[in-house]
Amino acid sequence: MTQASGLRIREVGLRDGLQNIADFMPTAAKIAWINAEAAAGVREIEVCSFVPPKLIPQFSDAEAVVTHALALDALTSVALIPNLKGAERGVALGVAKMVFVLSVSESHNQANVRRSTDESVADFGRIVALRDAGPDVPRFVLSAALSTSFGCTYEGRVDEGRVVELASEMAARGADEIVLGDTVGFADPGHVRRLVRAVQGAVAPVAVACHFHDTRGLGLANAFAAYEEDVREFDASLGGLGGCPYAPKATGNVVTEDLAFMFEAMGVATGIDLDALVKVREIVAAALPNAPLYGSLSRAGLPKGFTAAG
Amino acid sequence: MTQASGLRIREVGLRDGLQNIADFMPTAAKIAWINAEAAAGVREIEVCSFVPPKLIPQFSDAEAVVTHALALDALTSVALIPNLKGAERGVALGVAKMVFVLSVSESHNQANVRRSTDESVADFGRIVALRDAGPDVPRFVLSAALSTSFGCTYEGRVDEGRVVELASEMAARGADEIVLGDTVGFADPGHVRRLVRAVQGAVAPVAVACHFHDTRGLGLANAFAAYEEDVREFDASLGGLGGCPYAPKATGNVVTEDLAFMFEAMGVATGIDLDALVKVREIVAAALPNAPLYGSLSRAGLPKGFTAAG
Repeated sequence: MTQASGLRIREVGLRDGLQNIADFMPTAAKIAWINAEAAAGVREIEVCSFVPPKLIPQFSDAEAVVTHALALDALTSVALIPNLKGAERGVALGVAKMVFVLSVSESHNQANVRRSTDESVADFGRIVALRDAGPDVPRFVLSAALSTSFGCTYEGRVDEGRVVELASEMAARGADEIVLGDTVGFADPGHVRRLVRAVQGAVAPVAVACHFHDTRGLGLANAFAAYEEDVREFDASLGGLGGCPYAPKATGNVVTEDLAFMFEAMGVATGIDLDALVKVREIVAAALPNAPLYGSLSRAGLPKGFTAAG
Repeated sequence: MTQASGLRIREVGLRDGLQNIADFMPTAAKIAWINAEAAAGVREIEVCSFVPPKLIPQFSDAEAVVTHALALDALTSVALIPNLKGAERGVALGVAKMVFVLSVSESHNQANVRRSTDESVADFGRIVALRDAGPDVPRFVLSAALSTSFGCTYEGRVDEGRVVELASEMAARGADEIVLGDTVGFADPGHVRRLVRAVQGAVAPVAVACHFHDTRGLGLANAFAAYEEDVREFDASLGGLGGCPYAPKATGNVVTEDLAFMFEAMGVATGIDLDALVKVREIVAAALPNAPLYGSLSRAGLPKGFTAAG
């Protein structure tokens, strides 16, 4: 069904959601979450971040989680990597897709990965070399995710020309996909249409995916705007996980089940069973009782007479 | 500023929000709410419904509220009317704009105004005759709001051809504006684009406005989709008021301050001061402590460096 529409939703709750949550989610719960989402029809899950465990203890079990996820049929298991070291950990496990993250704004890149954007770009070149190293290294799909593509908590609105320039450079260096990330909820639908179009024009035939947060309620409107510009891959987080319990203003990603509902309602098949997906929230709620879960579909249910696109 | 973009947001919280709330909001609080929103730059407010007070006691002070609102400069005060009797009450007060409501689905019309859709259409003809009666009756703007234009809790998805047919009939009978209402959150952005285009094609040059609820989180995405089809008038409710405290699944209208933020972020001037608008929530919260208020902008604040469109 996903093939028919080409629409793909990538669950990032296990990475972007969990990275802001201090309570450790037991490995067994992470695995149950992955199993249940895969069973609900989600075809791509970002299952961990290969950062040093002492920086984010939540990902200290990354190897165990990845090893489990890789054994699931019909699931693309993705790992986030901040640097070459992370890519090497992924290669050692045979991860088939990795997302390299860097920020368009210098101050956010410094805060997030502790180096300059230029240093991140240079490191990306080394990761591409690893990917292309030849028969001893299994080739992996390499995404380049540009955080703060729409705005930055430190610097405010981000220059669109700079985003196009950086996306072009990452594509030229060998990215298989560019992800435009609205890390802190600065995007609006008009901004999305304009920037996506500009980046697509600069990086084609490399695909552009989108990663929206719902900080100011515009997440789904932004996703629809991107869809109108032919974006067909979207990040989202079950229950919008990622709202930090210590900072009530920092809500998380677009809610996976609401995003899937929007597309299914539009007649765009996602391959996802919405009822089954909503049930997965119970696993997360049980394992992380203090983490706020967001979302509308889980509260309102499907409309009377609703039929999925698939 | 509103003139520049042509974008107009109509506050309906005092009508659509309050009609579901059993606690009576004191007349003084309603007036303070109207004053504060008008001062924040909202140019059109639906201030009451002319229904029999014994049916909805919340509107037993409709005359007092309307009389106050009509005295405010630069504000278009609107009253909802379910029938000719309501229109006569409006005419007696000199209300300059009235919204006649009927439902596309028979069962919803029966539940809401206790008669068939055909009977509502016939009554609309009598209201048009009143509007056009001549020098003794001040001419008023007459909107026709089609509830359940996208779907109905009783009947499920509503046939698009029937909506076009009914909108055409109301325009032919003399409606100055057609409002497509997604009364219970059935619309999706694709559906909105398609239906708005079809109705515009059938009723032009009569304008089409939109009234979305946020039941399943798609309210802002639907508003953006309608904007893409050149809709320039939108209903919304401060704090999304209208979520019934006794039915947690029934969330209310699109949140006025979030809708205004979306358009201002897109560079589309609304004429509204967002900070001032968010502050109006305090009036509602103080007067209705049990009513849940929704919204993202009020929680997250404006993005760093944000500049309004106006």
